Amino acid sequence: MRDFLPADKARRERVLAVIRERYRAHGFDEIETPVVEEYARLHAGIGGDNEKLAFNVLKRGLDADAVRAAADDPAALSDLGLRYDLTVPLARFYASHRAELPSVFRSIQMAPVWRAERPQKGRYRQFVQCDIDIIGDATARAEAELLVASLDTLDALGLEGGSIRINDRRALDWMLDSFGFTAEERPGVLITIDKLDKIGVDGVVAELAERGAAPAAVDTFRSFMMRPQTLEYRPYGEGQIRKALPVGAPDDIVAHLVAIGEAVAAARPAADLPGEIPLVFDPFLVRGMGYYTGTIFELAHPSVAYSLGGGGRYDGMIGRFLGQDVPAVGFSIGFERIVDLLSGGEDAAASAVVLVHDRDVPVDELVALKAAFISEGYRVRLEQRTKNVKALLEHAAADDYRSFVTVSAGQTRADLDIKPLS
Amino acid sequence: MRDFLPADKARRERVLAVIRERYRAHGFDEIETPVVEEYARLHAGIGGDNEKLAFNVLKRGLDADAVRAAADDPAALSDLGLRYDLTVPLARFYASHRAELPSVFRSIQMAPVWRAERPQKGRYRQFVQCDIDIIGDATARAEAELLVASLDTLDALGLEGGSIRINDRRALDWMLDSFGFTAEERPGVLITIDKLDKIGVDGVVAELAERGAAPAAVDTFRSFMMRPQTLEYRPYGEGQIRKALPVGAPDDIVAHLVAIGEAVAAARPAADLPGEIPLVFDPFLVRGMGYYTGTIFELAHPSVAYSLGGGGRYDGMIGRFLGQDVPAVGFSIGFERIVDLLSGGEDAAASAVVLVHDRDVPVDELVALKAAFISEGYRVRLEQRTKNVKALLEHAAADDYRSFVTVSAGQTRADLDIKPLS
Repeated sequence: MRDFLPADKARRERVLAVIRERYRAHGFDEIETPVVEEYARLHAGIGGDNEKLAFNVLKRGLDADAVRAAADDPAALSDLGLRYDLTVPLARFYASHRAELPSVFRSIQMAPVWRAERPQKGRYRQFVQCDIDIIGDATARAEAELLVASLDTLDALGLEGGSIRINDRRALDWMLDSFGFTAEERPGVLITIDKLDKIGVDGVVAELAERGAAPAAVDTFRSFMMRPQTLEYRPYGEGQIRKALPVGAPDDIVAHLVAIGEAVAAARPAADLPGEIPLVFDPFLVRGMGYYTGTIFELAHPSVAYSLGGGGRYDGMIGRFLGQDVPAVGFSIGFERIVDLLSGGEDAAASAVVLVHDRDVPVDELVALKAAFISEGYRVRLEQRTKNVKALLEHAAADDYRSFVTVSAGQTRADLDIKPLS
Repeated sequence: MRDFLPADKARRERVLAVIRERYRAHGFDEIETPVVEEYARLHAGIGGDNEKLAFNVLKRGLDADAVRAAADDPAALSDLGLRYDLTVPLARFYASHRAELPSVFRSIQMAPVWRAERPQKGRYRQFVQCDIDIIGDATARAEAELLVASLDTLDALGLEGGSIRINDRRALDWMLDSFGFTAEERPGVLITIDKLDKIGVDGVVAELAERGAAPAAVDTFRSFMMRPQTLEYRPYGEGQIRKALPVGAPDDIVAHLVAIGEAVAAARPAADLPGEIPLVFDPFLVRGMGYYTGTIFELAHPSVAYSLGGGGRYDGMIGRFLGQDVPAVGFSIGFERIVDLLSGGEDAAASAVVLVHDRDVPVDELVALKAAFISEGYRVRLEQRTKNVKALLEHAAADDYRSFVTVSAGQTRADLDIKPLS
């Protein structure tokens, strides 16, 4: 877990403010839930592998005897845990507050989550997730609103040129069926197919064979991948989606994917080349979480090889809390990755000034001068002059201050010249 | 712990944004620390009564045998805990990062803390604290900057007219000495004197007698309180401070208090009546935390009987982490109380519009219209028309939407009239 020093913290807050402003413009509403949820809810089998990574909170008021008695039963030792994602809390929130929310609820959550991962580069045990979700809309309108809002937000962050890889879990299931894989072997086959980008067709075929997958199905998969047009997915549209899938793909799934594309194109007419939209159908996009039931997507950007976010439809999950199925689709923008990409300072720092004062300037004069600059719109730091003024000014410049003033006793605002910090 | 629905969450974020903007203008820099700290640090005797209220996090990877073996030793069962305040983490942060920070470091922390309090009205187990602290400045400049920034922030929140009650722990100790209380009985005497506002002089005298305090000291205290001018503390200045204390108060303590007043007066010349400043010396202000070593203060506002924040000097604490004493003074503005006081909506909502559309409007038309309104600066929510349009619009109005548009298939932006939501 990390401390954030002033420059990092300011950058993080600027990114959060942009995301919040854009998502709000797109009609999403921010909510907040407590960082802890009930132990039983965090370990109900919804969170996938992340459940094992939960930090659990010790029950209060247990004496040594009670601890010994509870030693074999984690749920007796711990009644709360730190959330490992924002989806489980959202499902619980929606089930609790449905009556107070619009019939189609568009939520924003921007908050930390915790996972007890082994420390490694780029992985943190506390990190911020920024999720938007639409609950209560089964139509392509929901996916279109999510994707347009996310692309618009990426633009607003100065990362123009983002694009979305999209697929549908149902299309994936149907395709694996059509190759001849059984429903039982599907989870394992998906894990292998998810590595297509990394290990290629030959690697996938070899790993499928190792798994003991049906040889005829593996052969069908390989033949399908060897078709000349396999990688020709652009431009996005019905023809391309059908060409990328085996013959006979279900009409409803294809129509849903086409409608999303038409809507994104209509909302972002100037976003790309004429006739192109920032959407790519990828029939082998898998995404790990087990709870996805329909469309899945990932956000790509030309500046980086990894994805900058992703999401999908999870129509079954809310029902587990509510006892009644409710359609839901979410998108998580990769906040920590985006913060790392955006290392620049802020424009507002142009109006930040350091007042370097002699030791003998009375406190009331100092504080009055500071108030005068603040009332002119400056951000103001007082610094008592040291022997090494250069080091002091360099430090201020590193903190995004862009100008300074030297102050002696008896001077008023009118006596002071603002000089640039170079 | 609470869920925050959209209207509450939006209000909280607006208040945080104002506080952040004002404190930054005053030269404070925001930092962030992880929500968990090491168990040993949270239970080192610095946090006072709050240490007992910490939520502790169960160690990962303990099997049942290890739990049984650790049953008698909380520190073996738990290596981390949720922070119960922002002061202990700040001291740890400063000790870790001192070399990277300015010689006088002005920090902002706006973040949740957790206390396992018994549930009761107005007490939450997760709540946000907003602290500013100045580390490395022993002069009255530090107190003046804190208090001016806090009063300015209160103004910016629309709560003009705030004032500060101020005292100095050293003055309090000296006064109790001069009454004849021993150093040993001081902690108990302070707990009783802290109730002066609630139980009055007679109540305090009775409770001091019950405590077994030296009768002569109690008599001296009572005589002192019976002086006619005791409650005449305004206007703030040396004369008033000396009149409010027994004769012979130490010059350095009085001079420090006077310098703070002069600086606040210089920075806020128009804040009050001519010649008055928003500062009140209260020789019986105690404040609970044991770590205060000098000035202490509380923020008052005419609209409420309780305080809206407080703080003080704690020159000893950083030294416990750093092995070297560093002066420090902090102020915590009462975020949760202020949020409860500010229940109004936001001006920006004037440009929020609901698009109420017929069921048969194609998704691409809807999403394109939404994008058109967003590009005009609107915040936009799509709502499919229901039988009860009135309820739908009322719900939107409750969510701070102020206008609506009805959309049929084939309409473009030019066809649509924006109507007020009343």
